[in-house]
Amino acid sequence: MTEPSDKDVHIPRDAHDDYGPDIIKKRQAYFESQTGGRIDHVGKYSIDPNELKGNIEHFIGVAQVPIGIAGPLKIDGEYANGEFVVPLATTEGTLVASYNRGMKLLNMSGGVKSTVVDDAMQRAPVFVFSDARKARDFVAWVKENIGVIREEAEATSSVAKLTYIDHYLSNKFAFLRFNYRTGDAAGQNMVGRATFAACGWILDHYEGIENFYLESNFATDKKASQINIMRTRGKRVTAEATIKREHLLKVMRVDPKQIDYHGRVAGVGSFLSGVNNTGLHSPNGITAMFIATGQDVANVSESSAAILYSELTDEGDLYLSITIPSLIVATYGGGTGIGTQRECLELMDCYGRDRVLKFAEIVGAVALAGEISLASAISSSDWVSSHEQYGRNR
Amino acid sequence: MTEPSDKDVHIPRDAHDDYGPDIIKKRQAYFESQTGGRIDHVGKYSIDPNELKGNIEHFIGVAQVPIGIAGPLKIDGEYANGEFVVPLATTEGTLVASYNRGMKLLNMSGGVKSTVVDDAMQRAPVFVFSDARKARDFVAWVKENIGVIREEAEATSSVAKLTYIDHYLSNKFAFLRFNYRTGDAAGQNMVGRATFAACGWILDHYEGIENFYLESNFATDKKASQINIMRTRGKRVTAEATIKREHLLKVMRVDPKQIDYHGRVAGVGSFLSGVNNTGLHSPNGITAMFIATGQDVANVSESSAAILYSELTDEGDLYLSITIPSLIVATYGGGTGIGTQRECLELMDCYGRDRVLKFAEIVGAVALAGEISLASAISSSDWVSSHEQYGRNR
Amino acid sequence: MTEPSDKDVHIPRDAHDDYGPDIIKKRQAYFESQTGGRIDHVGKYSIDPNELKGNIEHFIGVAQVPIGIAGPLKIDGEYANGEFVVPLATTEGTLVASYNRGMKLLNMSGGVKSTVVDDAMQRAPVFVFSDARKARDFVAWVKENIGVIREEAEATSSVAKLTYIDHYLSNKFAFLRFNYRTGDAAGQNMVGRATFAACGWILDHYEGIENFYLESNFATDKKASQINIMRTRGKRVTAEATIKREHLLKVMRVDPKQIDYHGRVAGVGSFLSGVNNTGLHSPNGITAMFIATGQDVANVSESSAAILYSELTDEGDLYLSITIPSLIVATYGGGTGIGTQRECLELMDCYGRDRVLKFAEIVGAVALAGEISLASAISSSDWVSSHEQYGRNR
Amino acid sequence: MTEPSDKDVHIPRDAHDDYGPDIIKKRQAYFESQTGGRIDHVGKYSIDPNELKGNIEHFIGVAQVPIGIAGPLKIDGEYANGEFVVPLATTEGTLVASYNRGMKLLNMSGGVKSTVVDDAMQRAPVFVFSDARKARDFVAWVKENIGVIREEAEATSSVAKLTYIDHYLSNKFAFLRFNYRTGDAAGQNMVGRATFAACGWILDHYEGIENFYLESNFATDKKASQINIMRTRGKRVTAEATIKREHLLKVMRVDPKQIDYHGRVAGVGSFLSGVNNTGLHSPNGITAMFIATGQDVANVSESSAAILYSELTDEGDLYLSITIPSLIVATYGGGTGIGTQRECLELMDCYGRDRVLKFAEIVGAVALAGEISLASAISSSDWVSSHEQYGRNR
Repeated sequence: MTEPSDKDVHIPRDAHDDYGPDIIKKRQAYFESQTGGRIDHVGKYSIDPNELKGNIEHFIGVAQVPIGIAGPLKIDGEYANGEFVVPLATTEGTLVASYNRGMKLLNMSGGVKSTVVDDAMQRAPVFVFSDARKARDFVAWVKENIGVIREEAEATSSVAKLTYIDHYLSNKFAFLRFNYRTGDAAGQNMVGRATFAACGWILDHYEGIENFYLESNFATDKKASQINIMRTRGKRVTAEATIKREHLLKVMRVDPKQIDYHGRVAGVGSFLSGVNNTGLHSPNGITAMFIATGQDVANVSESSAAILYSELTDEGDLYLSITIPSLIVATYGGGTGIGTQRECLELMDCYGRDRVLKFAEIVGAVALAGEISLASAISSSDWVSSHEQYGRNR
Repeated sequence: MTEPSDKDVHIPRDAHDDYGPDIIKKRQAYFESQTGGRIDHVGKYSIDPNELKGNIEHFIGVAQVPIGIAGPLKIDGEYANGEFVVPLATTEGTLVASYNRGMKLLNMSGGVKSTVVDDAMQRAPVFVFSDARKARDFVAWVKENIGVIREEAEATSSVAKLTYIDHYLSNKFAFLRFNYRTGDAAGQNMVGRATFAACGWILDHYEGIENFYLESNFATDKKASQINIMRTRGKRVTAEATIKREHLLKVMRVDPKQIDYHGRVAGVGSFLSGVNNTGLHSPNGITAMFIATGQDVANVSESSAAILYSELTDEGDLYLSITIPSLIVATYGGGTGIGTQRECLELMDCYGRDRVLKFAEIVGAVALAGEISLASAISSSDWVSSHEQYGRNR
Repeated sequence: MTEPSDKDVHIPRDAHDDYGPDIIKKRQAYFESQTGGRIDHVGKYSIDPNELKGNIEHFIGVAQVPIGIAGPLKIDGEYANGEFVVPLATTEGTLVASYNRGMKLLNMSGGVKSTVVDDAMQRAPVFVFSDARKARDFVAWVKENIGVIREEAEATSSVAKLTYIDHYLSNKFAFLRFNYRTGDAAGQNMVGRATFAACGWILDHYEGIENFYLESNFATDKKASQINIMRTRGKRVTAEATIKREHLLKVMRVDPKQIDYHGRVAGVGSFLSGVNNTGLHSPNGITAMFIATGQDVANVSESSAAILYSELTDEGDLYLSITIPSLIVATYGGGTGIGTQRECLELMDCYGRDRVLKFAEIVGAVALAGEISLASAISSSDWVSSHEQYGRNR
Repeated sequence: MTEPSDKDVHIPRDAHDDYGPDIIKKRQAYFESQTGGRIDHVGKYSIDPNELKGNIEHFIGVAQVPIGIAGPLKIDGEYANGEFVVPLATTEGTLVASYNRGMKLLNMSGGVKSTVVDDAMQRAPVFVFSDARKARDFVAWVKENIGVIREEAEATSSVAKLTYIDHYLSNKFAFLRFNYRTGDAAGQNMVGRATFAACGWILDHYEGIENFYLESNFATDKKASQINIMRTRGKRVTAEATIKREHLLKVMRVDPKQIDYHGRVAGVGSFLSGVNNTGLHSPNGITAMFIATGQDVANVSESSAAILYSELTDEGDLYLSITIPSLIVATYGGGTGIGTQRECLELMDCYGRDRVLKFAEIVGAVALAGEISLASAISSSDWVSSHEQYGRNR
């Protein structure tokens, strides 16, 4: 096979004005020329491409992802208090209706209590030594020098705060897992810079490091992992509600006992299948909110984890709660400032500074609404017919 | 707390024309009235809401997600053959540039070989018995009656083909995991209906079943799981390339040995962290393609898994391959037919019938491009500066 | 560092009579000479060293592991029927007493129903190809040739029966997992030989295999793994009982609700900790039975997995069951024929041919007794004091 | 089924002298009467039953487990320095020979560097609250009161030192994981008592705790778990060696490249199978040493985990290391003081105080010897024939 020359095949770029109408058109034409496909809808957007400079390269247009709304959902959070309507961007029929149904039911029993119980964003460098002993001694040194290391890390940002460093020793490697608070940003880049700076200082001041990488598959960014379930990534949120038996029977035609029993049986399924979520489908609602609000949607990987827990009260009502241990959300930075995304955040009063915990509480509460809705459907065995009614025949 | 009456709080709906301009406006106004936020961009779209009936409820507008293009990428697939430009919908700066860089490098060494090695979509009902012995005997009966069960399942669809049923026994439960081929659809609903029908027949013909649920957290839909990694969900795709040392040095300023060594060290990190992906960031590219092409983006949960493997050839070149064991994709049904999404598929000649394996091959190949790009950056330690240059300060 | 010559340091051996009294004495003296330690008890044994030829090399004596008995335990198995006293070899105080207490309680409610629900022993070779496509095609060929492959495998033994071959494709590798029935032996060596023979035939008849290893960490011998939990290794046994509330209150001073509730809470702990056993301590009883009966004790690794499940009946009684998905046991071969070990098996009428399923049922039932005992203690919070009373201050 | 009365069926006990010859005989006769089996070898032992009071109940005799010796193995530890012969109690043919072969090879290249890199024993209580917020606030209070909590815990023992408390929040539960140093004891009971005392103080001083259990499946005692792999249980030991290519070729007839390559391929197998050990068979040697030296053999469950890592040096030699992240060992207490067990420890100068780190280093080094031996056999494909030669036909 002959090597393609750079001249022959390339995407049109304009070094001076890469977000202007001309170059966008050129790129569209280039894309169309590949297959004879046509760009029509993709080229129609109301946002200003010039504002996308930090968000996308080789811009040609937009994906129009339909948004439906669900709610209101009554939330008793420490930051989110009151009733919230939420935008869900999805192409999956029944999703909005299902979440909406769950919200109605939760409201009847007083709404959802939602709480952020932890907050951490990581970068996990690895240091390679000539043997295990040196790796172990290095970790001791890092502990002793945590003060300076923190200073070096935090000097890179006005926001990032290094809370603690976990260490994991194996073979001749010392894995460090830097944990930060990152304000209203998701913070992956922020903590990357901070950790890089801290590591720079470490590399300058510690002898015997044979190799160093800023990442080691221990932050597990954009992936599902046991460590994120255990030790939090992003926000750790719990949403809880006690649903009255009478409401469940009336709205969902299902008894709390049935839902609780299904939860037990599915718990065995969860253990055997090695799944990262003992609940039903929290990633559905989370993904739809992520797309609507400009989150980094690839973080659905981490955010897909959940622990669903139910209990019957002495009165026969259903206590149901979901913990999302690694919910990566932002109300500032990334895609949150773009036209439609910012609007969706603002419609929940969740755009900008000091809003991220509020937003996390809302996402948690929405997830719980989806769980009670699908749990009811499965326990009463009507969910296939529900799909039939709303969904396309695929 | 008093219960809200249904009258007080509700999202405007129109039983006769719920996708018409009036009701959409009413819903927008309703949403705005919740917080004083404003809908401007969200209300601007070129797609016809009437075509969204199976995709969304309570429609108010769209999320405009920026699309950039990367490529072309030379692919040697069994279905995708030639050079492909790919649309990536994301708000994460540097993502498109990073994937594009990886593609250029892969092309220099002859492109990517991409192969779908398995194909399966599941629904996993559970049957509860009075004891383990009955559960075991039931499984034996299911095996004996696989012929009829298959007929019942396949009668619900012209597409779905039941390939095999796995069983998992625990306590007094028999978990069955129905595996299907679903043509060009992702097929979750299709297999739900088929399995429901099959289970209906089973329930009619087998005595002693005490309880039954159509789902048991064993299909692990919208979740990451070991079973999906092991036994495939959606398509199992492997993309491979051998990258010449000289190209890697020239384009990425990194030696194959460095990338290979990082892979080993990160392998230890992967094991310790319990992550579902031994690679770097395949969900980034996958998510961006999913949004652009109307996939069910919540399936990023399953699709986030990957096995990255590298080897040095005798010539010192780098063999690199990625297996995505549970890639859920469709070229028909779901969100694939919507305006922008369909265009993006068509621009790759991937919309409609007999295209899904081709599309899966492309996604796999794109993922590999992202891996070589980020692996090079991490191994040569310049990825933070790369983020600095392109990305916003978050 | 200078290399030691083979002459300087070596364990005394006798090529003609390595299990005779002289060479054993020489080895004891050699061992004593290393540190000045003394061999007294280790050198006292009643078994005949000459009978240990297939069980140990460099024999110097024995470990005397105390055996206590527990029971009788009423078992309703398909092979084990009636009341069984069991020998437990352990040095952990309270273990025998705790299991015995559980047995008494189980007897009061009618005993334990115990069932072997599956049976499989594996060897998992890996075949390396030049690319994924070839690995996939190879798997298809293996499926087509399963008949001959089975013949080749089964020709190596009068006992081993190849039930099925699972395949797992990743990158350019085809992992095959050969599943066998192995009669009354544990069968690891038997299936090793059978698989080696089958692979020999494969290697002779299939072109394009670049590399081959008889093991790939997919049989996960002597290790805990998700695949063994899912797909069985050794025997998959479930033991079940319904324990009357009044008995539980009387004997254990605990209500079924308390045990059930603890199980739920511990279920969350199990999920978060990533443990291979949702129960309490089944490996305690299993290990003690393994040592007493000459099992390969290293198989405690696999055998440590369990799924504990509880439910309250309508009468308020406690249904409790444990599934041990990868219990590796034998009643023939290995260490089962040695003096004390054989006696222990014979005392349960479990030595020799056609006994292994019976023995597996007993082990499962014993494990359940240990679970109810410790679950009661934890739920009623007296287990520390129980340890105080019996156990040494460590 | 009629309930058995306590009188009808019971194991003979003597309240005053339960370890005397008469009652032992009575129990033996009772056991024999169950099936007509005979106790001969089991009743022959040299240890004094009266010294077993804290180790066993219902004593009837001993299991005689054959001990073979392997070595000497040259170890460069911080506590174990020099050449060590090790006792291995097993009934698995080839095990001793295989480990011995590995030791010879390691000695040729200078022996094994062995290091304990961490040390921790846990008890993990759970506190149940009415909601997640209270659970979170409780954890904050625990952190503030760590000083008193430590005092309360450490007051129960002269040895136990509380190093830190990890917390894991989910739903309405606060899981605390108390981490201790426990001197030369394994310490499970010691930390049980200490944690119970600390929790007693907590329960007295914190309002709003609705439920409390001393264990929650988060210590994962006697089980394999991700948390123990990550965060250590018992000793975390790494053993390392660089094996010269020429020695490997000469002794094992295998090239370092072959072993290294097998390790890579098996790494993929490990990931797919979800195994707790990326190596080959460390539990074999560990179990044999555990039985010989009076360890709690059920801890093979935790101790079965391992991370094996290899690398080729510039000279073409093989760097190989194994990390055992949760090795539970003791040189004092438990079964270590019993006749044969104590002798085996003393023969390695490892009995009693200030010996546990030395012993852990030896176990780690032995494990490495087993890895290189079996890795060589698998890579050179002769391991089945090796089994044929030594092992019985099972």
